[in-house]
Amino acid sequence: MKGMETNWFWEFVTPHFIQQFSISDILYTGESEYQSIQVLDSPGFGKCLILDGKIQCSEFDEFIYHEALVHPVMIAHPKPETVFVAGGGEGATLREVLAHRSVKKAVMVDLDKQVVDVCRQHLPFLSDGAFDDGRTELLRLDAMKYLEETELRFDVVIIDLTEPLEEGPAYLLYTKEFYRGLLDRLAPGGMMSLQAGSTSMVISYGFSAVIRTLRTAFEMVAPYLTEVPAFGGTWGFAVASRDVDPTRLSPDEVDGRIAERVSKPLRFYDGVTHQGIFSLPKQLRTEMASDTRIITKDQPLFTY
Amino acid sequence: MKGMETNWFWEFVTPHFIQQFSISDILYTGESEYQSIQVLDSPGFGKCLILDGKIQCSEFDEFIYHEALVHPVMIAHPKPETVFVAGGGEGATLREVLAHRSVKKAVMVDLDKQVVDVCRQHLPFLSDGAFDDGRTELLRLDAMKYLEETELRFDVVIIDLTEPLEEGPAYLLYTKEFYRGLLDRLAPGGMMSLQAGSTSMVISYGFSAVIRTLRTAFEMVAPYLTEVPAFGGTWGFAVASRDVDPTRLSPDEVDGRIAERVSKPLRFYDGVTHQGIFSLPKQLRTEMASDTRIITKDQPLFTY
Amino acid sequence: MKGMETNWFWEFVTPHFIQQFSISDILYTGESEYQSIQVLDSPGFGKCLILDGKIQCSEFDEFIYHEALVHPVMIAHPKPETVFVAGGGEGATLREVLAHRSVKKAVMVDLDKQVVDVCRQHLPFLSDGAFDDGRTELLRLDAMKYLEETELRFDVVIIDLTEPLEEGPAYLLYTKEFYRGLLDRLAPGGMMSLQAGSTSMVISYGFSAVIRTLRTAFEMVAPYLTEVPAFGGTWGFAVASRDVDPTRLSPDEVDGRIAERVSKPLRFYDGVTHQGIFSLPKQLRTEMASDTRIITKDQPLFTY
Amino acid sequence: MKGMETNWFWEFVTPHFIQQFSISDILYTGESEYQSIQVLDSPGFGKCLILDGKIQCSEFDEFIYHEALVHPVMIAHPKPETVFVAGGGEGATLREVLAHRSVKKAVMVDLDKQVVDVCRQHLPFLSDGAFDDGRTELLRLDAMKYLEETELRFDVVIIDLTEPLEEGPAYLLYTKEFYRGLLDRLAPGGMMSLQAGSTSMVISYGFSAVIRTLRTAFEMVAPYLTEVPAFGGTWGFAVASRDVDPTRLSPDEVDGRIAERVSKPLRFYDGVTHQGIFSLPKQLRTEMASDTRIITKDQPLFTY
Repeated sequence: MKGMETNWFWEFVTPHFIQQFSISDILYTGESEYQSIQVLDSPGFGKCLILDGKIQCSEFDEFIYHEALVHPVMIAHPKPETVFVAGGGEGATLREVLAHRSVKKAVMVDLDKQVVDVCRQHLPFLSDGAFDDGRTELLRLDAMKYLEETELRFDVVIIDLTEPLEEGPAYLLYTKEFYRGLLDRLAPGGMMSLQAGSTSMVISYGFSAVIRTLRTAFEMVAPYLTEVPAFGGTWGFAVASRDVDPTRLSPDEVDGRIAERVSKPLRFYDGVTHQGIFSLPKQLRTEMASDTRIITKDQPLFTY
Repeated sequence: MKGMETNWFWEFVTPHFIQQFSISDILYTGESEYQSIQVLDSPGFGKCLILDGKIQCSEFDEFIYHEALVHPVMIAHPKPETVFVAGGGEGATLREVLAHRSVKKAVMVDLDKQVVDVCRQHLPFLSDGAFDDGRTELLRLDAMKYLEETELRFDVVIIDLTEPLEEGPAYLLYTKEFYRGLLDRLAPGGMMSLQAGSTSMVISYGFSAVIRTLRTAFEMVAPYLTEVPAFGGTWGFAVASRDVDPTRLSPDEVDGRIAERVSKPLRFYDGVTHQGIFSLPKQLRTEMASDTRIITKDQPLFTY
Repeated sequence: MKGMETNWFWEFVTPHFIQQFSISDILYTGESEYQSIQVLDSPGFGKCLILDGKIQCSEFDEFIYHEALVHPVMIAHPKPETVFVAGGGEGATLREVLAHRSVKKAVMVDLDKQVVDVCRQHLPFLSDGAFDDGRTELLRLDAMKYLEETELRFDVVIIDLTEPLEEGPAYLLYTKEFYRGLLDRLAPGGMMSLQAGSTSMVISYGFSAVIRTLRTAFEMVAPYLTEVPAFGGTWGFAVASRDVDPTRLSPDEVDGRIAERVSKPLRFYDGVTHQGIFSLPKQLRTEMASDTRIITKDQPLFTY
Repeated sequence: MKGMETNWFWEFVTPHFIQQFSISDILYTGESEYQSIQVLDSPGFGKCLILDGKIQCSEFDEFIYHEALVHPVMIAHPKPETVFVAGGGEGATLREVLAHRSVKKAVMVDLDKQVVDVCRQHLPFLSDGAFDDGRTELLRLDAMKYLEETELRFDVVIIDLTEPLEEGPAYLLYTKEFYRGLLDRLAPGGMMSLQAGSTSMVISYGFSAVIRTLRTAFEMVAPYLTEVPAFGGTWGFAVASRDVDPTRLSPDEVDGRIAERVSKPLRFYDGVTHQGIFSLPKQLRTEMASDTRIITKDQPLFTY
C-alpha cells in the first residue's frame, strides 16, 4: 500500500472499538510515579499528550475540551474570583480560568509533577504562561485531601481528572460523599463543573451515573456535551450548584458576559454553542432518566 | 492478550485516522454492479451494512442518522404529502418518511437493487415494511435523470447518498447546477434535506462547501449536525428551501408537530434535540464563514 | 483505501509483535469447557482453526506442521506399530500417523471433545477419515493421567499440545518429571516427538529450555525446525529416544523408508527436507548451548 | 488494555497479511530523491531502517540476512579478491565482504546517497567502518550502467537491492538480459549471489521465477533460504556461477574455509548452517520445478 502511513498510535476506546491515528514523531516517553507519559506528534491532531496509553489532549482540538470544561460554569457564575482546579496538569484548564478578568486567585492541585513539567517543556501552548501568572497557586497534593483540609472557600471548583471512573484515587472525586463535602468548600453562590466521560453510545454510560450522583448533593445539575474528536466522539460535562441554572442564559446573555469578562478570543464557546451543548439528544435524556445508579465510596463505578 | 477480541473490521476515516470495531459474524459478502456489499454483525454496533469498505449504518445507532436526516425537514414543512428520496437503498429513510401521517406518496430512486435486496433479507429492521407500504414507489434509476424527466413536483426532497463527495455519479447531486434544477421539482413551499458528510475536525470540511453551494440556489439554508457513533464522530446535514427557517421553531412547536403528525415514537428527535442540532459550535461556524468554495459540475469537490 | 481488505483476524505473537490476516468468513464461534473455538476462512491461509485467539492450523500450510511433527520420528523408528498422540484434536496428526503402513494401533487422547467435533464438521480435510480408521482409539481424557495409568507400551509417542508453555494442565507435559515417566511408557526402542514453540528470534526461547529438559530424560535428543507461515515464522520440534539419532539418516535412506512405508504422497517431508530441518542455524545452536533452564513441576516455564 | 504497547509500525507483507511491531522512537524521517527513509527504534527488533514503508533491516537480525547474502558465495569461491556490490546502501553487505582477508578491492554502487548517510549517522553498526576501509570504493551511480561501462572484472558480484521485483530501475537487475551480460563482468571462475525475495507461502513466488531466470545464464544455480524474522518469514537467495556448486562443500570444509579466511566471528553462518540453508523443503522444490517463468526486460515480474 504505497504512500500509506506506517506509524500509528492506537487506543482501545472500548474492548470492541479501537481508534488509530498516524504519528510522525515520539517526542517524549517516560514513567512518572503515577502513570506512563508520552508526547506524540501527528498529522491529524498535532502534538498529543498520552497518559497510560490514553490520549488526554491534542494540539488541534484541546481548545474544545478546555473551553467546554471551564467557560460554562465561569460564565454562569455572577463573578468568579477564587477558583479551584483539581487535576489539569497540562495547564490548559488553568489557562482558560485565568482568561476571566474577575479571577483573583486560582489554586490548582495535581499530584503528578512530572506531567506538569513535561507539558511545560513539550506542549507549552497548553499552559501558555498560566503557571507564571501571579494569581496561580500550584500545589502538588492529593486534591481530595487538600479540599478536606483547606480553610479557603471557592467561587468555582473545576474537576479535571483523567479517567475518573477507573481504579485509582481519582474515583473518590466522583462519589456522593465527595460532592456533599464539596458543598462546604464553595463560597456562597459557588458552583462547580466536571468532565464526566464519553457520551457516545459505543461506551457504557458512566455519564448518567455521574449526573445522578451529582443530584444527590446539588439542587441544580446541568449536563452538557460536545464532540472532542481526539476522544473518539462526544464528551460529557456538567455544571452543578445550589441554585444557578446555566440553561436559563440566552445566547445573547452569554455573548454579553463573554465580551465583558473574558480577556482573549474564544474559539469554541459562545452563546449559540452554549445553547447547543446543553440541548442533549433525546436518547441520552431517556438513558439518564432511567439510570438509578448512585456512585458512593463503597459502590464506586469503574468503567472501561 | 487473553480474552481480547480477534476479529475486526477497519475503516480509514481519513488517511491519518482508522477506526476498528470487533465483529462476531460476516453475514453477507457480495459485489453488485456498483459496489461491494457486506453485512457484518458486531458486539458494539449490532448488524452493520458496509458498502465499498465504508460503514453505512449500524443496528444500534441508525435511528440517529435516519431520524436526523428526515424529521427536521418534514417537521419544518407545513404539510408534506409527496416526498422524493434519492438513494437510501436500506429503506430506513423511507421508513421515517412514511411515519408522517400527511404523506400520500413517497418515491424512492436507488440505482443499486442489490443493496435493497440484501438489506431486506439481512437487515429487515431498516425498511421495517416500508417497501410494502402502498404509498411507496421504488424505482431502480439514476436519481438525477429521474428528477430531470419527471413531471411530478414534491413537497420534500431528501438526498441520502453514500459518500457524496467521492468520484462517481453521486457527486453531481452535490453541485450548484443540481440544486438550481431542483428548485423546479419542488412544489410551492417545497423543501429539501441532505446529508453532507463528517463535521469532525479530523476530516477536511466538505461540509462547509456543500452548505455554501446550497446557498447559491436556496434562500434559506440551515445546517445542522449530530454525532453518529458508527461514522466516527459528528455528521453534517442541511435543510434548504426558499423561505422556511427551521431554526425559528421553538422546542415546544417541534414537540407539538411531532405529536400531531408522526405515527410512531421517535428515539432521537424532539424539540430539545432540534434546538441542539441547529446550534453549531463556534469553530464550525467560523470555518463555514471563511469557506468560499462553490461546487460545480466542472469544479467538483472530492474528499477522502 | 479503495479495494483494501476490511475484515481482519489479529493475534499478538508477542507483546511487541502482531500478525494480521484478512478473513472472508467466520464459519464457527463457540466456547468449549476448556477454550474458545473459532473457524475462520481467509484468502491467504484458507480455513483456519483458532483456539483462545491463537491460530492452530490453516488449510494452506497445516501439512507442513503435521508432516514435520509426525514423520521424522516415525521414519527414524525401525518399525512403529503402536503410537500414542497427546492432544491433536484436529485429527491431522493422527492422519499422518495412519499413513504409515506399519501402524497397528493409534491411541489419541484429547480432553476437548468439542474441538474434535468442530474440526470434523468444518475442517474435515484435517482428519480426512482418521477417526473412522479401525486402528484408531480416540479417548476424551487427560493425556497425563492416561499415560500414568495405562499398561500399554508405545513405539512412538507424539505430543501435539497447543501452547504448551502457558498456564494450564498442558504445561505438565513439558516437565522433567513427565519425560522421565514417559520412558516407562515406551516400548523397547521407543521414541517420542513433540512441538516446542517458536524459534523466531522475536519470541523468547522456550524452545531451548524444552530441549535441555528433554535431555535430562533422553540420551538422544534431536531438535529441528521449519517455517510454518501461519505461526508467523519458524517452529521448533524435537525427536527424543534412548539411542536413535535421526540425523544419522542420509537423505537417500529417508527417501527409501518413505517409499517403503508411507501409503500417500508427502508434500513437505523427504530426504532433503530431513537434512535441512535438522541443520539448525548457528545462532540457535549458540542460544541452546548457553541455556541452562530445566523445566520442572515446581519451576515451570511460561512463555507469552 | 492496560500496559499494552500503543505505538506501532505496520507493513502490508501482502494485501492479505500485515505485520506490526511496536516502536519506542522515531529517530529519522526523510524523503530522498528515490524513496522515503525512516529509522525507528523498537523493543522487538532494535533500530530498524524503513524504505518506502518496508523494513530493510533490523539491529537484532540484520546479521542473518547479511551473512546469508555474502558468505555462501564468498566461501564457495576459491579466492575472492575483487568484489562488486550492487545496492546495499546500509553498508552491512560491504562489512561482511571486507571480513574476508582475501579481498583486495570492493566496489559498491548505490544510487541513493541519502540512505548511505542516514545509516552512517543513525545505524553506524551496519557499516561498522566499512566505508573507511582502504579497499572500499563507493560510487553513487546506477549499478546497471556501471557494470555496462566498467573494464573491471570481478571475482564475486553481490546483488543487494531492495524490492527487486517492483517497478523501478532495480527490476532490470533481475532479468535474463542482465544475467547474461553479467557473465562478461565476472573474472574467470567468477560467481554471483543475490537475494530473491520471500519464500513464505503467504507470498506469491517471485523466488522461483528468479531462480529459473538465473538458469538461462548460469550453468550452476544454487538456491537457498533462511528465516529473517523482521521480513516476516523465510527469505530466498541464490549463488550462481559457471561451474561451482556450493552444495558440494561439506560442513567441515565450510568451517575450515571460514577459520582460514574470515577475520571476525560469524553468528549465523557455519558449516551446519550451510547444509541447512541449501536443503530446501520439498514443497518449495516442487513449486520451483513447475515454474516456467523467465523474467526479461519485456516481460518483467512485479510482485506485491
